Amino acid sequence: MNLLLLSNSRTHGRGFLEHALDEVTDFLGGRSNLLFVPYALRDHDAYTATVADALRPAGITVTGVHTAADPVAAVRAAEAVFVGGGNSFRLLKTLRDTGIRDAVHDRVRAGALRYMGSSAGTNMACPTLRTTNDMPIAEPDSFTALDLVPFQINPHYLDPDPSSTHMGETRQQRIEEFLEQNDVPVLGIREGAWLRVSDGSARLGGLSGARLFARGAEPREFVPGDDVTFLLSGTPRFDVPA
Amino acid sequence: MNLLLLSNSRTHGRGFLEHALDEVTDFLGGRSNLLFVPYALRDHDAYTATVADALRPAGITVTGVHTAADPVAAVRAAEAVFVGGGNSFRLLKTLRDTGIRDAVHDRVRAGALRYMGSSAGTNMACPTLRTTNDMPIAEPDSFTALDLVPFQINPHYLDPDPSSTHMGETRQQRIEEFLEQNDVPVLGIREGAWLRVSDGSARLGGLSGARLFARGAEPREFVPGDDVTFLLSGTPRFDVPA
Repeated sequence: MNLLLLSNSRTHGRGFLEHALDEVTDFLGGRSNLLFVPYALRDHDAYTATVADALRPAGITVTGVHTAADPVAAVRAAEAVFVGGGNSFRLLKTLRDTGIRDAVHDRVRAGALRYMGSSAGTNMACPTLRTTNDMPIAEPDSFTALDLVPFQINPHYLDPDPSSTHMGETRQQRIEEFLEQNDVPVLGIREGAWLRVSDGSARLGGLSGARLFARGAEPREFVPGDDVTFLLSGTPRFDVPA
Repeated sequence: MNLLLLSNSRTHGRGFLEHALDEVTDFLGGRSNLLFVPYALRDHDAYTATVADALRPAGITVTGVHTAADPVAAVRAAEAVFVGGGNSFRLLKTLRDTGIRDAVHDRVRAGALRYMGSSAGTNMACPTLRTTNDMPIAEPDSFTALDLVPFQINPHYLDPDPSSTHMGETRQQRIEEFLEQNDVPVLGIREGAWLRVSDGSARLGGLSGARLFARGAEPREFVPGDDVTFLLSGTPRFDVPA
């Protein structure tokens, strides 16, 4: 499998994918055609144009899967796919309703399709969408996502603000609630960071780091360049209250 | 119907329900027994003890529904119920799996049961949980909630922070995404505020205000004391993309 899982597509003060352009080019390994899945946002044409404009200078041609007469066939013919961010519930519902979920799962697992995601697209690479930050604006028939890695990712991971008087849960508290219900590690990837999986190994990259949460353990910090291959060999256990 | 829907149970620097104690007493109208639903948090006994301690000085006796041999029968026998905050997905899954959802819905709709909620418990009073802020740590068999009012509420409503460099969506952006998918008004109730529904009218109370979002309209601000009865006569339309 070849995966590039970005926390976010746009870092503060920079253009779309600008912070990760070298990594995207390296990930594609000379492939010049990228199939884009825009379903997390409402305007599929505008979203696809944004991605195409960002990647054109690198010589990459972007096609929106929504323009294909048969989107599942387009996935089966692609060498690399990018699932963009937006709302995870809307995205998962569409991936499942169209059959794209199964097609992507099968081809990525078989090593025939490179998978790149950002934000909601990175959530999709996990067993479920249970660690999304998004509002459940649409109701998918199941929370089961692409299941490409055996752990959960929380994109846009945000450290607690010690000066806040807001009483809503911090991100860490929300992830701890997840761990009360599920025995599955959660990698909180900060904005600007990403996870690269290839040749059976996993490594953090980018501008910031990540924080790993697991049941019964203190949170662990990782910095860019750290090897986190051990995460690929776990067995997730959902719905096993602590 | 008699409803008291609190944005939150604990306001910064104050004790559990302290900011709303007079309103809770008024809402109960002399009833001294309150059935508490603790399912949004993991530790049901500890959560019930917190509520009992907070309401004892007002002469209110609190019983946790989880201690009843037959929780649905306990709902059918109660005059007033309080559904506490925590994780909305865990809460809704438990309400539906136990049958409490239908029992509360029927008795509140019939005017036989007073309903009080805070945070996740306030989300439950809506047609669905689609405007929760919570992480989907558990998977309910449906997003359909108690359906006591015909609009959605976003509790802990938080105004955008203009100094933030975080690229995740603001609360207003998340609600606007909800309105792309659904034609249902969303009342964002700030911490410290609440909505009181009785005798067919609805009024905002508490320490702060609320912001109303509706498809095709500019957001509207409401302050404590404002009458929002008009919200009770709408017809929610879900899954109708704009």
